[in-house]
Amino acid sequence: MKRERPLILVSNDDGITAPGIRTLVMLMKELGDVVVVAPDGPQSGMGHAITIGNTLRLYKTDVFDHWGVEAYKCSGTPADCIKLAKHHVLKDNTPDLVVSGINHGSNTSISVLYSGTMSAAIEAAIEGMPAIGFSLCDFDPDADFSHTHALVLKIARQALQNGIPKGTALNVNFPPRRDEEMKGVKICRQARAKWQEQFDERFDPNGRRYFWLAGNFVNYDKGEDNDEWAIANNWASLVPVQFDMTAHHAISEINENWSL
Amino acid sequence: MKRERPLILVSNDDGITAPGIRTLVMLMKELGDVVVVAPDGPQSGMGHAITIGNTLRLYKTDVFDHWGVEAYKCSGTPADCIKLAKHHVLKDNTPDLVVSGINHGSNTSISVLYSGTMSAAIEAAIEGMPAIGFSLCDFDPDADFSHTHALVLKIARQALQNGIPKGTALNVNFPPRRDEEMKGVKICRQARAKWQEQFDERFDPNGRRYFWLAGNFVNYDKGEDNDEWAIANNWASLVPVQFDMTAHHAISEINENWSL
Repeated sequence: MKRERPLILVSNDDGITAPGIRTLVMLMKELGDVVVVAPDGPQSGMGHAITIGNTLRLYKTDVFDHWGVEAYKCSGTPADCIKLAKHHVLKDNTPDLVVSGINHGSNTSISVLYSGTMSAAIEAAIEGMPAIGFSLCDFDPDADFSHTHALVLKIARQALQNGIPKGTALNVNFPPRRDEEMKGVKICRQARAKWQEQFDERFDPNGRRYFWLAGNFVNYDKGEDNDEWAIANNWASLVPVQFDMTAHHAISEINENWSL
Repeated sequence: MKRERPLILVSNDDGITAPGIRTLVMLMKELGDVVVVAPDGPQSGMGHAITIGNTLRLYKTDVFDHWGVEAYKCSGTPADCIKLAKHHVLKDNTPDLVVSGINHGSNTSISVLYSGTMSAAIEAAIEGMPAIGFSLCDFDPDADFSHTHALVLKIARQALQNGIPKGTALNVNFPPRRDEEMKGVKICRQARAKWQEQFDERFDPNGRRYFWLAGNFVNYDKGEDNDEWAIANNWASLVPVQFDMTAHHAISEINENWSL
């Protein structure tokens, strides 16, 4: 059945009340009929976690009623939200597009692995739905998203029109708002960079030790075709991400060198 | 400094008291000096989650004292365990090998994305350490691991001797114990298969609805070079897994078809 307007599913990992998802819902309303299924609280850094040993709750919420948008909050992870959306909320009504975000903070480079935002998009891609994760490289809770609006719409329109390459989801990051206007979108590869962790060691009021994860992001990649370079140079980055994690090039290497 | 015996870090996602990690520690003792840093409870399905908004606890435990093996339990995810092991427990004493498992249950195909076992191995690979995740395709809590011993040792020895291709970790799965002996190890790619979810809808004593994630694994892949085929045919599967998730082949497709 051909729909009059596309059906767009929106999720995120910062929780259903985060300003970033509000921006995304507002923009997607221009393109189609929107349904929101998002975590009931922050799920940052959840990677591709799913809830196996615990129960899941799903409640209808009125947070987007003023826009006429149906919304559900879920006690689980972003990947759980997509699974529940598909199998329970939307049932056979497959969305034409799934968008996740806009994340408060960068999901470039290796962060794609830790990202709850991207896990929602990847989960949708596994289910064969065109999916995009959007992130703003600005961790400020009051971050300004206004400079991303036009490009979010442009990218979503292109995805609705052209689809997304099979077996992939798109990881889109925007640079923080600067005085100079954003240059546009670069199709990139994931930069070779990583978090250089430090643990902040503290003691609780009972004298027991605990740790906070802390650290710096270190970029080892000298290329100009990667997402870190794009963001540093005021471009939005778009990386097609696949869920086939096989290192195909390494198969022959192991077959040649190992005795098993 | 050349060590007399290799230093081997062991972790898992089923928790430090699971039979699978006990098997792995017992086997690794034959190959080197072992340090264990593992979750204090089950962390299955945690994907590549890390603990950002909460504190982490790390306690020394005596569970492997009878073998003279130093062990720590951690309140966080498998990825947290590896980060804490590197930056706090071992410091500059980089392990020669990191092994995770043996998981109680399959991590073939798409399950690599949801797997806490593999997230420990992948986290180690990101840090440049040779790493292997081992899983037994048998969800029985009393599963028999004895048929895997010889191959776990063989694969770990090959990794210590030849290293592991740069930027990858190995995902090793064993078939359940059968009457017929396991055929050996196949170097494979990740099968194109997925979980077909169903949610089991129930009501709590207060009449409020909740869900359990359930479902069946469906294999769409007709190839004989993938991990699902190997397990079904009584081979152990070994898939090199990469943390560069870029769908490189899709970059040109988007550059050609999209107008941005």
